Amino acid sequence: MQSDEELRRRGAQKIGEILGQTAADVEASLGDIAPSLATYVLETIYGQIYHSSTLDSRTRQIVTVASLATLGTAGPQLRTHIGGALHCGVTREELIEIMMQLVPYSGVATAINGVIACREVFAKLDSKQNQ
Amino acid sequence: MQSDEELRRRGAQKIGEILGQTAADVEASLGDIAPSLATYVLETIYGQIYHSSTLDSRTRQIVTVASLATLGTAGPQLRTHIGGALHCGVTREELIEIMMQLVPYSGVATAINGVIACREVFAKLDSKQNQ
Amino acid sequence: MQSDEELRRRGAQKIGEILGQTAADVEASLGDIAPSLATYVLETIYGQIYHSSTLDSRTRQIVTVASLATLGTAGPQLRTHIGGALHCGVTREELIEIMMQLVPYSGVATAINGVIACREVFAKLDSKQNQ
Amino acid sequence: MQSDEELRRRGAQKIGEILGQTAADVEASLGDIAPSLATYVLETIYGQIYHSSTLDSRTRQIVTVASLATLGTAGPQLRTHIGGALHCGVTREELIEIMMQLVPYSGVATAINGVIACREVFAKLDSKQNQ
Amino acid sequence: MQSDEELRRRGAQKIGEILGQTAADVEASLGDIAPSLATYVLETIYGQIYHSSTLDSRTRQIVTVASLATLGTAGPQLRTHIGGALHCGVTREELIEIMMQLVPYSGVATAINGVIACREVFAKLDSKQNQ
Amino acid sequence: MQSDEELRRRGAQKIGEILGQTAADVEASLGDIAPSLATYVLETIYGQIYHSSTLDSRTRQIVTVASLATLGTAGPQLRTHIGGALHCGVTREELIEIMMQLVPYSGVATAINGVIACREVFAKLDSKQNQ
Repeated sequence: MQSDEELRRRGAQKIGEILGQTAADVEASLGDIAPSLATYVLETIYGQIYHSSTLDSRTRQIVTVASLATLGTAGPQLRTHIGGALHCGVTREELIEIMMQLVPYSGVATAINGVIACREVFAKLDSKQNQ
Repeated sequence: MQSDEELRRRGAQKIGEILGQTAADVEASLGDIAPSLATYVLETIYGQIYHSSTLDSRTRQIVTVASLATLGTAGPQLRTHIGGALHCGVTREELIEIMMQLVPYSGVATAINGVIACREVFAKLDSKQNQ
Repeated sequence: MQSDEELRRRGAQKIGEILGQTAADVEASLGDIAPSLATYVLETIYGQIYHSSTLDSRTRQIVTVASLATLGTAGPQLRTHIGGALHCGVTREELIEIMMQLVPYSGVATAINGVIACREVFAKLDSKQNQ
Repeated sequence: MQSDEELRRRGAQKIGEILGQTAADVEASLGDIAPSLATYVLETIYGQIYHSSTLDSRTRQIVTVASLATLGTAGPQLRTHIGGALHCGVTREELIEIMMQLVPYSGVATAINGVIACREVFAKLDSKQNQ
Repeated sequence: MQSDEELRRRGAQKIGEILGQTAADVEASLGDIAPSLATYVLETIYGQIYHSSTLDSRTRQIVTVASLATLGTAGPQLRTHIGGALHCGVTREELIEIMMQLVPYSGVATAINGVIACREVFAKLDSKQNQ
Repeated sequence: MQSDEELRRRGAQKIGEILGQTAADVEASLGDIAPSLATYVLETIYGQIYHSSTLDSRTRQIVTVASLATLGTAGPQLRTHIGGALHCGVTREELIEIMMQLVPYSGVATAINGVIACREVFAKLDSKQNQ
């Protein structure tokens, strides 16, 4: 994918707002082996899709967490976006209740695995704060 | 499943609030062949899970629409809950943007099929209003 | 796939026992365009996998119905194997309860769609009997 | 979710019968972070859905193992219910054959991962017995 | 999503090469209700991702057909890309064999549904040619 | 499953060509607990399905990698077949681009997890070569 200066700038700003991460974090994890994928994440996802103001960041994170938990195959990404949801003002209680709301639609294993992912993210944040 | 008078009353009220449907609608569609499933829908989903006030109805519908669209195997239920989301104050533009937000996580076919489901629900509502 | 006379004979017999179908039915539906797939269905699935006596036919059909309903993407195959389950002695009440048992694990849309598939298969059988 | 004394008692008894676990085990794993989910597991799944006598426990476990293995996203739950199936009288050979029966419908990776889950559960039981 | 003149031109050319469609076709199907999704399809998918020369069009279509068939939830998109695969030089026999190759990994229902999708696309092309 | 001498010989040869493995490797991993599954892998998958010359080995591996990555539930099998793809002449750059081509259809988590699987397989090969 061809990189675009302006989208990259916008994506970097948005990924800061949503995840508290930087463009450098995305590139550190993917840039060596799949630079096009790093460009897609930064410029298309955060620079373009998240740029629309039709949904606020909080709602986008709720949609994203619900979708990733439902997929059930995206553990690391689910944990990243649980962190992002907290960063956008979703509370811990709301995240647990989102998993509860998934019980009837995606099943109890989705909810249990989602709750366990929350517990891991919450514990990591608590241990950072206690350092 | 054993029916419980109080949960049934609460579920009937909630399904009215969320979907604009009645307990009789649920029983008409499932009660003849699977009465336990009708009881589960009414009493467990609407009477118990939706009863918690940790998430408002609007947010529950956003979670539900995101999950059902991601599954991709629940067409009739997705259309029902798109209708429910509109009933809870999610706008048409927001629903389309929710499908757009699913593009990176669940793929473009999920988003296209979700948009087509929205178009069907919107058209049905418009044709009702024009009668 | 290379056809094997003996597996073909065994598969034809087993597909009769399980589904009440013949080898000719499988070939009529797939043989024109995908003869290898017809061979796989007849010789590998019915001639080999179903041949083991570790599970009886009734149990095999319960496993198959549970798996196809969980997948959610195999509507025609699910209806075929609901018919097969009835053919192997699973009752209508048991089939509905199998869908109910899927509620917590695969979600309520799986169960509702499974119940609707049962209703279609049951109605077709009833209308045949009433002719 | 609101807890119900009678369902809780019934669920605790059933989870003992099926999994050889206690209500306290469920609460130990989920009660701290998601008490509603613990209530759902104990009272709705074991107290209500498993309560119907239309399917015996052995058949319920066969359905559950087939569904969880097919999902492929519920590793810990699959291992728990393989243990439960053994507890309800499904033999080791039958469990392996159930995975074999999933090959044509859910694919060979489902079957291989299911067999590996069985091997882990069997080994744990053997090592307990040898202590 | 913000539209980009150059990506749009490139995407329109590529969608012609791959699917024999035009930018106007994409906009006719999605532009009224979800213009951002039309932009994503045209500019991101065809203008950017397909633009890389690391894979030729034939290989991209083989990957796409395998992925959409495996998903099982993207019927209309699968048929579109089976058409695209033929347009890029994949033969009918190869497409059927691709479905056969999916049997062990994604299961026999995926393969049967994929073969049926092929049959529909082939029949439509034949009926066009005979007009 | 009943073993067939000729299919076994053919499967052993093909698994050598595709994965650089032997029949003994398959039996070492599955034969103790699920000999029928080892027979299926060796004789049906490699001895029969891969035997058709309609697709070359390179194309079969591309289809297999795309399908396993899309499933998202078959990590060990995905890594095995990424290795097989390299063995059949697919380059590292092509494998990364296959994951990139999955982004629009199966989502960015599929692509990221696929890229990470590639990185693991590449690193293992490099460390073997450097020994």
